[in-house]
Amino acid sequence: MGELATPHGSFDTPVFMPVGTQGSVKALAPDDLEELGARIILGNTYHLYLRPGHLLIEKLGGLHGFMNWPGSILTDSGGFQVYSLATLRTITDQGVFFQSHLDGSKHFLGPKEAMTIQQALKSDIMMAFDECAPFPSDYDYVRNSVRLTQLWAEQCRAEKKPGPQALFGIVQGGIYPDLREQSAKQLVVLDFDGYALGGLAVGEDPDTRVKVMQATMPHLPLHKPVYLMGVGRPEDILEAVNLGVDMFDCVMPTRNARNGTLFTTQGKISIKNACYREDQRPLDEACGCYTCSRFSRAYLRHLYLARELLVYRLNTIHNLYYYIHFMENIRQAIRDEKFPEFRDEFYKRQKQAENTFQA
Amino acid sequence: MGELATPHGSFDTPVFMPVGTQGSVKALAPDDLEELGARIILGNTYHLYLRPGHLLIEKLGGLHGFMNWPGSILTDSGGFQVYSLATLRTITDQGVFFQSHLDGSKHFLGPKEAMTIQQALKSDIMMAFDECAPFPSDYDYVRNSVRLTQLWAEQCRAEKKPGPQALFGIVQGGIYPDLREQSAKQLVVLDFDGYALGGLAVGEDPDTRVKVMQATMPHLPLHKPVYLMGVGRPEDILEAVNLGVDMFDCVMPTRNARNGTLFTTQGKISIKNACYREDQRPLDEACGCYTCSRFSRAYLRHLYLARELLVYRLNTIHNLYYYIHFMENIRQAIRDEKFPEFRDEFYKRQKQAENTFQA
Repeated sequence: MGELATPHGSFDTPVFMPVGTQGSVKALAPDDLEELGARIILGNTYHLYLRPGHLLIEKLGGLHGFMNWPGSILTDSGGFQVYSLATLRTITDQGVFFQSHLDGSKHFLGPKEAMTIQQALKSDIMMAFDECAPFPSDYDYVRNSVRLTQLWAEQCRAEKKPGPQALFGIVQGGIYPDLREQSAKQLVVLDFDGYALGGLAVGEDPDTRVKVMQATMPHLPLHKPVYLMGVGRPEDILEAVNLGVDMFDCVMPTRNARNGTLFTTQGKISIKNACYREDQRPLDEACGCYTCSRFSRAYLRHLYLARELLVYRLNTIHNLYYYIHFMENIRQAIRDEKFPEFRDEFYKRQKQAENTFQA
Repeated sequence: MGELATPHGSFDTPVFMPVGTQGSVKALAPDDLEELGARIILGNTYHLYLRPGHLLIEKLGGLHGFMNWPGSILTDSGGFQVYSLATLRTITDQGVFFQSHLDGSKHFLGPKEAMTIQQALKSDIMMAFDECAPFPSDYDYVRNSVRLTQLWAEQCRAEKKPGPQALFGIVQGGIYPDLREQSAKQLVVLDFDGYALGGLAVGEDPDTRVKVMQATMPHLPLHKPVYLMGVGRPEDILEAVNLGVDMFDCVMPTRNARNGTLFTTQGKISIKNACYREDQRPLDEACGCYTCSRFSRAYLRHLYLARELLVYRLNTIHNLYYYIHFMENIRQAIRDEKFPEFRDEFYKRQKQAENTFQA
């Protein structure tokens, strides 16, 4: 439990950051996000660099001005997307040569470039450029990835211009506790504004992830925010908060929304299922979101089957409300010193929901 | 200039009805439409009959309840879509056998079915089932189409249950003034709540359309609303208002929006054009819509090129605002007894905009 201040406002943590990859949280306008209570969103450096280009965005007022979002913005370093989306990558000690997933054009991204781009985007929080090892990777590969990540972190630190933009370092080390510990300890020496756990949510099972976090968290300073990148399901967030993580992002609520999978207090539902054909109830009777206060499951199912554009916005609003409300409840439980009870209660209700579905 | 009252509110005419084909004006929520000042929208009987089905909609509160729209709704008869979308049509004196464009399933739609469906949808204004002749069609084909349309109009009239739903008859007759006159005179005998001009905006040139309207309007009662179906461009609406038409619908503002073509007081613009890459101005500096008060052309161009879902909503809001505002200006000009001046001014400005584009 803490508070994070940026040039675009303060907010309490633990916090969930909706993902706005290309300068838009898919299907939503900035005032939808404000109404949902979102205070910080994520932008993807790789995408924005390729299209429309960071220099254009810089000229048009930075990412805040370009997309008309008054809240805080965190940009990733572009590293993860280079590894997951781009083709024909060649990694050197200087950075990564790659081809764009959009048009095959050739590019180079290294620590210097990642900083230049993020400084042009004028995000509130920048991420150091890292090497995110694929999963699974053997010990030697990951050891080198930690070496590169540290080398690049030092260069990012050196490239950072004085000013209000914060810079976070990223801990790598795969699933190897000793490499995670080493990466964390090395990074902390560089005195970043915050620290992220990278290279997780890439295929490892939840127990392994918890072990990695347990090996890392004791080596990060208590008074700096910790950000678990790309995670995840509500239960994954709960376990990470339990270990002291402060910040989260994930495409799950927004992507699931567009695929018709909705989070509810009674478990997940797939709106295309025939059982909702005549269902006049809202998605979640316990939910106070815009969508649930106006539309029935039957109507949302119809829109989804008819591929009506409206459904993407309505579903996204609902799922983000679920996540943002979930974080609010977590913060309240921490304030009330009842987080363990909140966590137990969550799993109890999740189990009940599963039983209801099987019944 | 007049006022039309339905069970879901009154509104001034001439009026433009946004098209909500499948129970949604594409990309917008009902409160977007309310904010835009839309008071009546159109629903398509053919689409709603096929999916999700009129019986389901009836069970869920009619189309108003199903889509949560508090304003007025006009439903078409399904005839035009059977002719333009369905396959393997066979027309008899009883109605039309056809195959669904969705799944090839076989259906029959006639005057009785069109009334049953529209009564289940609980629209405020229903349309009689008509035979819309393709364009071009020879005189004999259109003469028979007028005969069928009249036969079916009589049957629709007989099928109409007592209640608050209004029923409009549809004048057919292609481009043949004598057949239009005949169709209008025959229909008026049946004393409908309003009359529509069907079979226009199907490929004929604007001058021909004006001639058809001139041949028809004198034979329709002055105190009943007249609806020109599926028309059209702002200048088409202007010419029809000039001849006394009260109601309009067209997919042009909404479809163009999704294709990146935007109406402005300076002419139409295609947002994907490279000239808007760094353009910080709103779509239309004279426009007061949600989109223009928040977002730049450069941002909208980026969203469009990146296929971001948000752009469909933002563009649709802008184009519908343009149309609805255009109708407001027409009504004000009529109130001020300055419609001829308004019309001249519109063409003068349109010509200036064209010259600007060429310059």
